[in-house]
Amino acid sequence: MLVDGHPYRSIWLAEDGRAVEIIDQTLLPHRFETRRLESLDDACQAIAEMRVRGAPLIGATAAYGMALAMAEDASDARLDDAYAALFATRPTAVNLRWALDDMAARLRPLPATERAIAAYARARAICDEDVALSRAIGEHGADLIAEIWRRGGRSGPVNLLTHCNAGWLATIDWGTALACVYVAHERGVPLHVWVDETRPRNQGARLTAWELAQHGVPHSVIVDSAGGHLMQRGRVDLCITGTDRTTAAGDVCNKIGTYLKALAAHDNGVPFYVALPHTTIDWSIADGADIPIEERDPAEVAQITGRTATGELATVSVMPEASAAFNVAFDVTPARLVSGLITERGVCAASREGLLSLYPEHAAEAAGR
Amino acid sequence: MLVDGHPYRSIWLAEDGRAVEIIDQTLLPHRFETRRLESLDDACQAIAEMRVRGAPLIGATAAYGMALAMAEDASDARLDDAYAALFATRPTAVNLRWALDDMAARLRPLPATERAIAAYARARAICDEDVALSRAIGEHGADLIAEIWRRGGRSGPVNLLTHCNAGWLATIDWGTALACVYVAHERGVPLHVWVDETRPRNQGARLTAWELAQHGVPHSVIVDSAGGHLMQRGRVDLCITGTDRTTAAGDVCNKIGTYLKALAAHDNGVPFYVALPHTTIDWSIADGADIPIEERDPAEVAQITGRTATGELATVSVMPEASAAFNVAFDVTPARLVSGLITERGVCAASREGLLSLYPEHAAEAAGR
Repeated sequence: MLVDGHPYRSIWLAEDGRAVEIIDQTLLPHRFETRRLESLDDACQAIAEMRVRGAPLIGATAAYGMALAMAEDASDARLDDAYAALFATRPTAVNLRWALDDMAARLRPLPATERAIAAYARARAICDEDVALSRAIGEHGADLIAEIWRRGGRSGPVNLLTHCNAGWLATIDWGTALACVYVAHERGVPLHVWVDETRPRNQGARLTAWELAQHGVPHSVIVDSAGGHLMQRGRVDLCITGTDRTTAAGDVCNKIGTYLKALAAHDNGVPFYVALPHTTIDWSIADGADIPIEERDPAEVAQITGRTATGELATVSVMPEASAAFNVAFDVTPARLVSGLITERGVCAASREGLLSLYPEHAAEAAGR
Repeated sequence: MLVDGHPYRSIWLAEDGRAVEIIDQTLLPHRFETRRLESLDDACQAIAEMRVRGAPLIGATAAYGMALAMAEDASDARLDDAYAALFATRPTAVNLRWALDDMAARLRPLPATERAIAAYARARAICDEDVALSRAIGEHGADLIAEIWRRGGRSGPVNLLTHCNAGWLATIDWGTALACVYVAHERGVPLHVWVDETRPRNQGARLTAWELAQHGVPHSVIVDSAGGHLMQRGRVDLCITGTDRTTAAGDVCNKIGTYLKALAAHDNGVPFYVALPHTTIDWSIADGADIPIEERDPAEVAQITGRTATGELATVSVMPEASAAFNVAFDVTPARLVSGLITERGVCAASREGLLSLYPEHAAEAAGR
């Protein structure tokens, strides 16, 4: 997608063909800076510090992290260590496990001498595949949005609400939830997006708003508490979010607060869709309560970084020093609150039956879950 | 309540008997500073700039604002002007109208020469009455909390969740929702309070956390999005919030986001109570949709003020400059989601019948609403 008019992906191979480059998402929207990842450690750190984030991009970065590890030492021991180190960076997004399993399964049978080249090739392919998945998700989601527009009955544009950042910065290109927005916008559907700021790390206010501004999609940032009121007043036609892990039964784990928006959508008859590629489905579990939920540093709640009037970055504390904070990063929206899942293969019900109608090849894996 | 061990109210008459003093709540928890209100304009500004806030305190400040106006000029015209100026400061909290109607009804029949003294006396009485109301609310709410504690079945303390600040800073002393917490704490019930930070103005992270820290009540600040997950995981025994206006049918208007917490409480079988004095009930309307909802400066969403590592106050912007924000300050929780109303006269159902069982003298007023 475009940054100041120039096309970018969220991760790419450096010109030397060995290092990997990323956009440092912790500095957006204040500064656009890229960073070189030269080693496995760099890749682990970039994921853990959330310089890259978003389930599909975490997976892709892990794939390149494995390639960086293989370029240093392609032994079996190193492969196991790299898998373990990358797997430990973030617990919730299942794309991480998916990408690591995919890489390990392809690399392990190879002689050590062939592993590095194969790892780079597969990491690159994972990225290209993800772009295709995102674009396909966008087409299916845009059909939904266009249908709402055609149905009419409103004076202004179609109003969408989204939580966190499920845009191109969360994937390799296009995004998941925002891919639907971008494709609908391309098709000329008049849109306005309510952007949840998404505390504590403000991925909505920082990243989604920045993406939408770069692409000229009308939007307004709101506090995470505002969506319910907007839905009560008929000012939201459709919610679309991403997900970090969706169970075989359609429970959706996503950024903390998604569940509250799904409750409000349900209470007000507003459709609530979740956009995801197949790599985000965890066929091994059915109940969202079994998904490990990451707890992060309470300082993310207590402190906020932004730019001052003179343009420098500064970090301020909002709470009393004597008070504790608690920081849980994800919640689970039960399938009963989800109107449908928008995947690269089409839209399905958030249920085992719905998912298997699109992914029949997983029937055995999902059985009994 | 205590500030560094010394008892304070949120508003009081200055030693000269003419000016009024307040705690500047925009500076908490970073600085504890008091401010003198010398004129009607000062009082209007203090309310509009939210140096004082909270429905009962807004009412009390308006009463003193009327006294300050009468001390300058006690004519009928001035009385009307003062009413209009104070009424225009904030649209949602009905205590403002209640206090102004009460003052005007008492002052108008008096000769101009007697109005100033009567106005100060009545403003003072409104404050004293509010303290008694708050304490009574606290006793009734503490009974509820103590009952949950006695019922047992948990390993730790009773976990409450509250939104915004409905503490002594929102009233004159004790508070509404937090009065219940303080009285239960006094009685020795082990408690822990989940404090919603309450974006965009962070009254939870700034004011509720500060109050609880000053009184040694265990608490943790969370982002507004976290409460649903905590309820899903059984980590909330009871929600209590305040309200800025409650209709004759029990719909509750309160700080934006209250509705989302009530939805989550309902979805998880967690009791959701609202604490209020009778001055917050608007007997003239039944449907919460008829309550005027304040829209405030989008800059409150876009910018955050806090203290830097060196202790100065600084304001930072989080969003892209090219993005718009939208800032709506309140929402309405329908009565069906409210387990009960905790008033100075006891606990009742959130319904016309419930309210009239405690306030039968309003039956005529509420009829047909």
